[in-house]
Parts: sequence; C-alpha cells; structure tokens
Amino acid sequence: MQKFKQMIAQTPKSPYYAVIFTSVRTEGDHGYAEMAVRMVELAGQQDGFLGVESARNEIGITVSYWRDLESIRNWRENFDHTIAREKGRKEWYQTFKVRIAKVENDYVFERN
Amino acid sequence: MQKFKQMIAQTPKSPYYAVIFTSVRTEGDHGYAEMAVRMVELAGQQDGFLGVESARNEIGITVSYWRDLESIRNWRENFDHTIAREKGRKEWYQTFKVRIAKVENDYVFERN
Repeated sequence: MQKFKQMIAQTPKSPYYAVIFTSVRTEGDHGYAEMAVRMVELAGQQDGFLGVESARNEIGITVSYWRDLESIRNWRENFDHTIAREKGRKEWYQTFKVRIAKVENDYVFERN
Repeated sequence: MQKFKQMIAQTPKSPYYAVIFTSVRTEGDHGYAEMAVRMVELAGQQDGFLGVESARNEIGITVSYWRDLESIRNWRENFDHTIAREKGRKEWYQTFKVRIAKVENDYVFERN
C-alpha cells in the first residue's frame, strides 16, 4: 500500500551513497528534538540529498541517502550542521558511529 | 563508557559490507519476535558476520555488517533464513527495502 511504501526512502536506482549514523543518547533532551527536526529540513535542501530513514529504541539508527560523496562532503561542511555536530558531541550522545557506504544493490517488497 | 560503546557494532577497519534492511511491520506478532531472536543467533554463527544494529519506531531499521559480498550471499542462501524471509513476505511486513552497501569509511565518538 502506498502509505507504507512512502515511509521508506524512495531512493533512485543504485549506485548511490548511505551515511549510517548509529548512536546512544544521553539522558534528557537538551534541545535534541528541535535540532533533529531542523537537521532533516536542512538536509532536504541540500543538493544530492535522496532521503532519510530513522528509528530509535536503545540505540538510534539514522540512514541518510546521497547522490555521491561530494554531496555528503558538502553537507558535512554545512555551517549549521557543523554546529549541531559539535553540540552533539558534548551533550546529546554517549557514543556514536558514522559509516559512509556505497549502495551497490537494492530491492523492495510491497504487499498487494 | 564501555557499556554504551558495546551497544554499537564493533566492526573492523573498513572496507566491509552493510546490509540495510528498512521495514514497516504488519499488526500483531505472528511469531516475529521469536524469529528475530533466532535470526540474530544464526547470523552470529555465519562466517563473515561482523555485527548487527537494530531499532524500531514507525519503521524498523536493521543494519548487519559482513566481511564481503560472499558472506552476505551465503547468509541469504541459508536455509532457515530463506524460510524466515518467505514467511516475512507473507505475514510480518507491509513493505521492506534491502540495500547492500560497501562501507568505505567510518569514525566513532565516545564520551570520556
């Protein structure tokens, strides 16, 4: 069904890139929720941004998808993003890991 | 702190591979929780398995890490896994997307 399909990022034909961000939060919000919304808005304005998926229980996983390494680099150099990242290191996270990966192949299943 | 660090998959130096599995569940369990535990156990026994991270809210994201494409292929051909996948298509998921990606670079942050 269309509404479920749209919850998964509608990325184009591979190859493209994924930034896999896995994190463990600190206690409390510290402005995190507001920043998270703003970051997704900003990413959506960035050239080469293809989509994002995010979920959190004990750990959080956010996967953003990008056209190429250059668009990832540009995004990382984005001023607001840099501020958020520095603040994140200090207040929001116990630990995080970032992995840059080239998506070589993908396939989808949808219920009728 | 060590206990937080261990919640994130302790993958080796890149390059290695990631299988990004993004899904939207159906209502109800239908044996899903039991299968999910068994799948992680089985993956852990598989040659080339490097670790797994998983989180779910509206969507679920499970990222498993592998030494190379061959170990991913072997895992997919694993009998039990095949059964689980076929059942999943029928009962567990509204939709899912699988992306096979080569991790080219990674970095970590840890609080002191």
